[in-house]
Amino acid sequence: MSFMFEKIALIGIGLIGSSISHAVRRGKLAKSIVGSARTSETVATAKRLGLIDEGFTTAAEAVRGADLVILCVPVGMCGPIAEEISGALAPGAILTDVGSVKGAICKDVAPHVPHGVHFIAAHPVAGTEQSGPESGFAELFDGRWCILTPLPDADAAAVQKLTRFWQALGSNVEIMTPEHHDMVLAITSHLPHLIAYNIVNTAEHLERVTDSEVIKFSAGGFRDFTRIAASDPTMWRDVFLNNKEAVLEMLGRFSEDLTALQRAIRFGDGEALFKTFSEAREVRRGIIQAGQETASPDFGRNKQ
Amino acid sequence: MSFMFEKIALIGIGLIGSSISHAVRRGKLAKSIVGSARTSETVATAKRLGLIDEGFTTAAEAVRGADLVILCVPVGMCGPIAEEISGALAPGAILTDVGSVKGAICKDVAPHVPHGVHFIAAHPVAGTEQSGPESGFAELFDGRWCILTPLPDADAAAVQKLTRFWQALGSNVEIMTPEHHDMVLAITSHLPHLIAYNIVNTAEHLERVTDSEVIKFSAGGFRDFTRIAASDPTMWRDVFLNNKEAVLEMLGRFSEDLTALQRAIRFGDGEALFKTFSEAREVRRGIIQAGQETASPDFGRNKQ
Repeated sequence: MSFMFEKIALIGIGLIGSSISHAVRRGKLAKSIVGSARTSETVATAKRLGLIDEGFTTAAEAVRGADLVILCVPVGMCGPIAEEISGALAPGAILTDVGSVKGAICKDVAPHVPHGVHFIAAHPVAGTEQSGPESGFAELFDGRWCILTPLPDADAAAVQKLTRFWQALGSNVEIMTPEHHDMVLAITSHLPHLIAYNIVNTAEHLERVTDSEVIKFSAGGFRDFTRIAASDPTMWRDVFLNNKEAVLEMLGRFSEDLTALQRAIRFGDGEALFKTFSEAREVRRGIIQAGQETASPDFGRNKQ
Repeated sequence: MSFMFEKIALIGIGLIGSSISHAVRRGKLAKSIVGSARTSETVATAKRLGLIDEGFTTAAEAVRGADLVILCVPVGMCGPIAEEISGALAPGAILTDVGSVKGAICKDVAPHVPHGVHFIAAHPVAGTEQSGPESGFAELFDGRWCILTPLPDADAAAVQKLTRFWQALGSNVEIMTPEHHDMVLAITSHLPHLIAYNIVNTAEHLERVTDSEVIKFSAGGFRDFTRIAASDPTMWRDVFLNNKEAVLEMLGRFSEDLTALQRAIRFGDGEALFKTFSEAREVRRGIIQAGQETASPDFGRNKQ
């Protein structure tokens, strides 16, 4: 039997790393999967769950002999790990990642990539609010989009192979520059997370409404925001530290638009409010039609 | 067989009106349900679905002889309808509503309530993004909270009866003043909707990111916001026009907090970001423990 890869090394085994493992096993895409995590506990958990065949507590050990190395760690860790594994990478290997920021990762990782190793940054736009090796599942990437941001001198065959890999994991693949990726994700992912974290924070620090009231009456809309605000804080800190310019630009647009709505409320401009609210419905319809959202009311929450 | 009410009149048969009908039928809480809608088409649909035994296109016809009248219309319609039905209300009847704003409704409705009719404003904190008579279901209120905001001179027996009614529909009941309700809902419901509408609007009007990219890559977080931004525009216009003060206050707090996060991003203050992000996780945990949210990852979306 021939596999797409002989040995895949997962550096970091959280939600994304463990989901990749499940999807690789499902598709029989690799002869073996090895992995590394910072603690021996996580390594042991990953082995117990069958996510990896061999485990290590350093990335350099894990990457030896691997023909595909996937960095599944917070954005800020990618540069240091690339430096650490630089001398251990096998000639001809593909080195990739799953980070939510691409410009900074390309800048941090590229200098450490030895000649003959193919570095192609990637970002599967998929996830849940949960973290850790036990949170992964094979279907996470099905029907979602994975964005590759190869540098201009990237090896075409390696880009094609990584494309086929992500397709085999269930994803659609799109290729764009790191800069454009960071702009697109600033609005479709980074700003939504920032706003969600912010409103939860605002609600927590009110004097006139208690925390218990916020919790009880959260079904009025607030609880929708708490899902993404429950995402891993380290991962998200790194995203904002590493995609500063694009996030600040989107935040500026958001605040400008919010000020206009605030003004419409203050002066009782019902027409302006109605117009803005009506347009928003269409966007959701588009997302559902594109297969990126469920059509069930209330996300299908508590569906029997 | 004895029923809690002889005849319930639903004024307006959208998501909430139709869900009340389903839950009343489920609990056998009324001998008959009548209703009114502005168009004869909606009346016909409601009859076809078995939501009402008799239907009318004016509220005044519907309320005749009803011992419970529930206004299930946008906030701005409550005052005009109260005026219209004033002379037709049966002595001893309970008049209530389901609006998301309570101060303005109490002010608009109370002057039209004839002596001997018990007006008690109410707000079931439950809903989906869907609208219309076909969107209702009996379980909508199960485990959710319904807030009653009786005026100081309200009849205690009527308050108790309406409490029992909402409990029989599946809800928990809490009593507070209209002013406090409007402050609590401004943060748990109105501000979340405003922010969701706003970010969708921002995303639609970018020059450097296309609508098709926003749709494709919405699984990064953005799509969560589109759910509540798909809610009925008329209903939400009325909420903001009628809860101006509390919404502007919450919006001020939100913007202040967002500016602090913006500053932390600009100056690379990872500690401040990490601290804010970490605290937000706890709030979701509290909401799940209180039974107001599902513990399934990703809201249980696309669960098989």
